[in-house]
Amino acid sequence: MKIVRPTLVLNKTICLRNIEIMQQKAKRHNLRFRPHFKTHQSIEIGRWYRNMGVTQITVSSVTMAKYFASDGWDDITIAVPFNFYEIDDLNELAAKINITILIDNIELLDLVKDKLTSRVDVFIKISTGYYRAGISSNSISTIEELLKGISLADKLNFKGFLSHSGHTYLARSKNEIQNIHFDAIVKMGRLKKHFIQDYPNIEISIGDTPSCTTSENFQGIDEIRPGNFIFFDLSQHKIGVCSFDDIAVRLHCPVISKNPGRNEVIVYGGAIHLSKDHILNIAGKPSYGRIIIKKNNEDILLGSGSYVCRVSQEHGVLKLSSFEYSQINIGDIIQIVPVHSCLTANLMKKYITKKGNEISMMGC
Amino acid sequence: MKIVRPTLVLNKTICLRNIEIMQQKAKRHNLRFRPHFKTHQSIEIGRWYRNMGVTQITVSSVTMAKYFASDGWDDITIAVPFNFYEIDDLNELAAKINITILIDNIELLDLVKDKLTSRVDVFIKISTGYYRAGISSNSISTIEELLKGISLADKLNFKGFLSHSGHTYLARSKNEIQNIHFDAIVKMGRLKKHFIQDYPNIEISIGDTPSCTTSENFQGIDEIRPGNFIFFDLSQHKIGVCSFDDIAVRLHCPVISKNPGRNEVIVYGGAIHLSKDHILNIAGKPSYGRIIIKKNNEDILLGSGSYVCRVSQEHGVLKLSSFEYSQINIGDIIQIVPVHSCLTANLMKKYITKKGNEISMMGC
Repeated sequence: MKIVRPTLVLNKTICLRNIEIMQQKAKRHNLRFRPHFKTHQSIEIGRWYRNMGVTQITVSSVTMAKYFASDGWDDITIAVPFNFYEIDDLNELAAKINITILIDNIELLDLVKDKLTSRVDVFIKISTGYYRAGISSNSISTIEELLKGISLADKLNFKGFLSHSGHTYLARSKNEIQNIHFDAIVKMGRLKKHFIQDYPNIEISIGDTPSCTTSENFQGIDEIRPGNFIFFDLSQHKIGVCSFDDIAVRLHCPVISKNPGRNEVIVYGGAIHLSKDHILNIAGKPSYGRIIIKKNNEDILLGSGSYVCRVSQEHGVLKLSSFEYSQINIGDIIQIVPVHSCLTANLMKKYITKKGNEISMMGC
Repeated sequence: MKIVRPTLVLNKTICLRNIEIMQQKAKRHNLRFRPHFKTHQSIEIGRWYRNMGVTQITVSSVTMAKYFASDGWDDITIAVPFNFYEIDDLNELAAKINITILIDNIELLDLVKDKLTSRVDVFIKISTGYYRAGISSNSISTIEELLKGISLADKLNFKGFLSHSGHTYLARSKNEIQNIHFDAIVKMGRLKKHFIQDYPNIEISIGDTPSCTTSENFQGIDEIRPGNFIFFDLSQHKIGVCSFDDIAVRLHCPVISKNPGRNEVIVYGGAIHLSKDHILNIAGKPSYGRIIIKKNNEDILLGSGSYVCRVSQEHGVLKLSSFEYSQINIGDIIQIVPVHSCLTANLMKKYITKKGNEISMMGC
């Protein structure tokens, strides 16, 4: 594999192992495994899941649903509150395959319900504490009002309640993740209990990688929708969700400049490759990635005090100890472990496997 | 213009005015105007410059140089330290057009000099205090060593010194920008003075939008390379470089959810559209964009206490006052003024003008 410019290298072996582990966990807990494909956005990677028996998927946009439907996926949840302007695309999709949308608002329901020409499943999006979309799990009367509206809509079929505990990404330890996850399953379980008499087929779907990876308690849950776990990244590593050996993507970058006075190395690889997502490293400094160098054909992960300390559009700046600085030359290829693999993949628009095979993504 | 999903809308009138103002300033100060095209990455927008008489441009990668060369641009500076792995592409380009590369390191020079098959101009990259690439302007002996190496290289023609005061982006006022700019022109002027006897045609090139926009002092400078000024953005507005009326790009986003308890509105439009670049707003909170709503067919800019407070992959969360919250409905189209127009454009990969014309970008 010859690296010429910033290249996102994918370790397929790790990906397959990550999928296998999550799938086994779903089986163990009798959960439907509906992985989120927004992380990889690739038909070819989608087929890896399919070859392992996955038949139902999650996406984050109508555009993405169309992309994966074109490869034969026929049971897709679009896991954001539905964007009404895409109603024509939704109708076209729903005429051919099983589509589930999210609704969390009577206004949205009123816009959508009369425009549907095909049958669509619907989850009510519940907020369990991540301040984004969703109705608070305590707002029973709002939920009941929405349920009434859905039951009156010809083409809508109420499926259950869906949540995404995205605040686990902000946790600082496995214990914090567990607290958030436990809180979520208690809240979702309460809803299930409250509504199951009227809706005996009600389903509960939860989503985030930190909860799904670290927990063994899925009481009352019917479906999991993690996505990031196929690649993992530095954010997940920081909060204890994965080990370094579980991270499947690295950005390979040529070294283009060095600053001896500051022990800094400049690589071709910046914000338009890695994104500007960062974590705080052990010294409390913003880190845009960890660094791996090659010595004697072996990959060496540098200590966490060595990191990508700044990114601009095309450049990344590596902060190093003076010894590490002395080990790196102009023209070397440095590997960066990204902070957020979903955003890095979205920017890079393609992968190269370690064997040198190119894998394309949506939109390219 | 019908907005269906997140769409980057470009005001061409403002772009042309921004170009005109910068070009006039360059003329007034007898500066070569070599705009940076990494901001827009578009052949069509490049032609707007060409129609106004611009013939020389700056880019941030060899890939981008090839893209613009394909539209007839024949004098291009690649304004990052040269990536040695792209030597074949460089040779191919340099056989056809005028290419200028940057070198800031004897290691890089040694790699490049014997592999060149065509004549290439070279700037020595100087750091004036922005901690990225470049030799410190005080390191005369390092510069002399590099100059000696360049003079011995058959295919390299020394052109002068180039700097980019990127630290003006971190300034908090026009005065701070002016201090940084003045410091840079003093440093670059000193270099010019020191080397002009041996190199009578030496040129000094500077770059950043904040300095070029706000300064009227370009003593000793031969060339300016601003890029961001064609669009401007919230970052530039925050430090006093432009007014709101000078900002030419807005991300139009459908409203998909609302949270009455928190006065928050969720739009379809997140980190994969805006990027994760943020500024601190007047309350010291991270802001990923300012908000414009339409009322009675008029654009209304909301106060700076109303802002995009969080972004995840596809979602943006708008923090609002209760009055503003009540003005916004599901299905409305909200306009977001981006924090960093270069990164937003790079993610969106195309523009729609206010008249509804689609403008494509590199790689699409």
